[in-house]
Amino acid sequence: MRTQVVIVGGGPSGMLLGQLLHLNGIDTIVLERRTKAHVLSRIRAGILEQGMVELMHKAGVGARLERESFHHEGTQIAHNDRMFGINFKQLIGESVILYGQTEVTRDLYEAREKVGAQTIFDVADAAIHDADTDAPYVTFHKDGREQRIDCDFIAGCDGFHGVSRRTIPASVRTEYEKVYPFGWLGILSETPPVNEELIYANSEDGFALCSMRNANLSRYYVQCSLGDDVGDWTDTRFWDTLRRRLPAEVAEALVTGPSIEKSIAPLRSFVSEPMRWGRLFLCGDAAHIVPPTGAKGLNTAASDVHYLYTGLLRFYQDKDSAELDRYSEKALARVWKAERFSWWMTSLLHRFPDQSPFDVKMQAAELAFLRDNEDAQRVLATNYVGLPY
Amino acid sequence: MRTQVVIVGGGPSGMLLGQLLHLNGIDTIVLERRTKAHVLSRIRAGILEQGMVELMHKAGVGARLERESFHHEGTQIAHNDRMFGINFKQLIGESVILYGQTEVTRDLYEAREKVGAQTIFDVADAAIHDADTDAPYVTFHKDGREQRIDCDFIAGCDGFHGVSRRTIPASVRTEYEKVYPFGWLGILSETPPVNEELIYANSEDGFALCSMRNANLSRYYVQCSLGDDVGDWTDTRFWDTLRRRLPAEVAEALVTGPSIEKSIAPLRSFVSEPMRWGRLFLCGDAAHIVPPTGAKGLNTAASDVHYLYTGLLRFYQDKDSAELDRYSEKALARVWKAERFSWWMTSLLHRFPDQSPFDVKMQAAELAFLRDNEDAQRVLATNYVGLPY
Repeated sequence: MRTQVVIVGGGPSGMLLGQLLHLNGIDTIVLERRTKAHVLSRIRAGILEQGMVELMHKAGVGARLERESFHHEGTQIAHNDRMFGINFKQLIGESVILYGQTEVTRDLYEAREKVGAQTIFDVADAAIHDADTDAPYVTFHKDGREQRIDCDFIAGCDGFHGVSRRTIPASVRTEYEKVYPFGWLGILSETPPVNEELIYANSEDGFALCSMRNANLSRYYVQCSLGDDVGDWTDTRFWDTLRRRLPAEVAEALVTGPSIEKSIAPLRSFVSEPMRWGRLFLCGDAAHIVPPTGAKGLNTAASDVHYLYTGLLRFYQDKDSAELDRYSEKALARVWKAERFSWWMTSLLHRFPDQSPFDVKMQAAELAFLRDNEDAQRVLATNYVGLPY
Repeated sequence: MRTQVVIVGGGPSGMLLGQLLHLNGIDTIVLERRTKAHVLSRIRAGILEQGMVELMHKAGVGARLERESFHHEGTQIAHNDRMFGINFKQLIGESVILYGQTEVTRDLYEAREKVGAQTIFDVADAAIHDADTDAPYVTFHKDGREQRIDCDFIAGCDGFHGVSRRTIPASVRTEYEKVYPFGWLGILSETPPVNEELIYANSEDGFALCSMRNANLSRYYVQCSLGDDVGDWTDTRFWDTLRRRLPAEVAEALVTGPSIEKSIAPLRSFVSEPMRWGRLFLCGDAAHIVPPTGAKGLNTAASDVHYLYTGLLRFYQDKDSAELDRYSEKALARVWKAERFSWWMTSLLHRFPDQSPFDVKMQAAELAFLRDNEDAQRVLATNYVGLPY
């Protein structure tokens, strides 16, 4: 087989890139390790920056998003029993969109099927070859048979555990990492969300987040210990912990119910530099991970897609590789800003095991300053709604 | 002896409080452990917030300050070889004043002598008694003789090592502390300052600060190891280190010369709560210490003086103790904000021994964001020129 761009990984960033390229006449094949059903069963965050929403429109998949998404004009921040709002709309005239990542992926799958572009699911042993030459190719097994696709470029959109990043020799890569000493226990429950906007809560007992999918589907998280097992957390323990970490009036208004999903995720900051090696370009989690505080994961993948798609367009339409050559530099500049924001939000809102009483007071002072100072709120809002591409 | 308010400690905060009270008809005695000559030989920072300047005027000692001080409308921040300015005046319409703390103290001594208010230098063994009763008193030795002053109130302005804070029983006090794993080596040299404004520099080699006293007296600092001794640092080593930590064009412009003073200071964040116990009120370093990054030490002492002086005025003039009763709460609210800012500036600009490559990238990302984002600059400016009392 031959194509112009092989996209390794059929998650939202790979599918978004594929659609944007296809609509511009660039031929792609997407390879995905799992089945389509599996990918669509994964539950992920759902706060989209304006830039991501615009890319969805560019990719021709904005219609359902426009109909079914929710505009969030701000967010709430709670500190023990006090709560205050950060109104993005008032502060900077922008807002974010609530639309589940699974829905994003579903829309992109449908669009790709409709245009007849090729996605190969359930592939094994994908391997990237000769990425540092002008004739790269990808091999994989499908139904037990080895196959090969020759191509011009490879987009590595296969996430943190994928093969793409590991294809770049360790000698030319630098990894930066911070592993946080706690996890997030998340549940999904068919209950009305306790609040229209998200509530990020820093309490003496630890962090909590009240989020949602729609008017009758709530998503709640509590900071948990790294060693915790989902089995340690009954629904009752979860709801009791969540209530304890919210301001009294919020806790009282909380409607609880049986969890329909419950899982623990670790929190990690990670960046691998560079994001380009020869004809291989990394996008999203393949190159960088943020802790979920601040909802920057998918959105930062989207900005990578933006830089890569514009670079490839320039290459194929204008025979100009300048944008591609600057891909790693441009993508990383924005990645590091998202990393900083996510690290700051995480540091501000969680209880750390090694935190001294002075450190706890620093969190309190920063939250008090944020509550009282509009410039600080604007800094948060600017980062939360998404820095410009 | 008897007076209304005994002020323990004849540094700038004690002297400022004494002058403000005296001008409002409240009788004070200041006790100072060292000689006047010794106090006036101490070299300290010299960036004054507008609030401090206004207090100096209220205390009738603003004339020389007006004549001889320098307005700094901004500051420079360097990161390796890049430098950018934060223009306070443009951002928020305010600026800071450069006027040495020694000059502040000198002006206050002269003013106090002129009005004939009593200052007792060279006292030993000062002790505060019955501060939790309506009849407190202070004892001390002067020229070998024990003396006693009965009073209404005691202001503890005797610094971190003074007796005032330790008079408050440990059972009612909470201490918060962070000791930074480095020191500042500072020198004074009779050379023209390398820049009109201060330069705060974060470099791969560590922190440096270019400051000054006047047009021919420079004050420079470099981050040094905690175990370093002044004897380890020849002038040559100091200048070489400083140059290495500044952007090339600044390093080239640096005029060096023999140091006329050289010393190492540790960096510490410290707060003791509450700041009031019965009739004893703590001010300044007696209750809290900030690392020098951001120049908040004297300025935060000044805000304590403001709250205490207005409280005592209300008490004596209106027989109303409400302001005094809220002293600790009001002073601490502002103290914690200054602590946060000083901790943030220190964390942003220094190399920490346990810093991971990811942590260094977070500093770089924060500095890049600060360079590009006016709201973030305004947050810095607002804190640097001083939050409102």
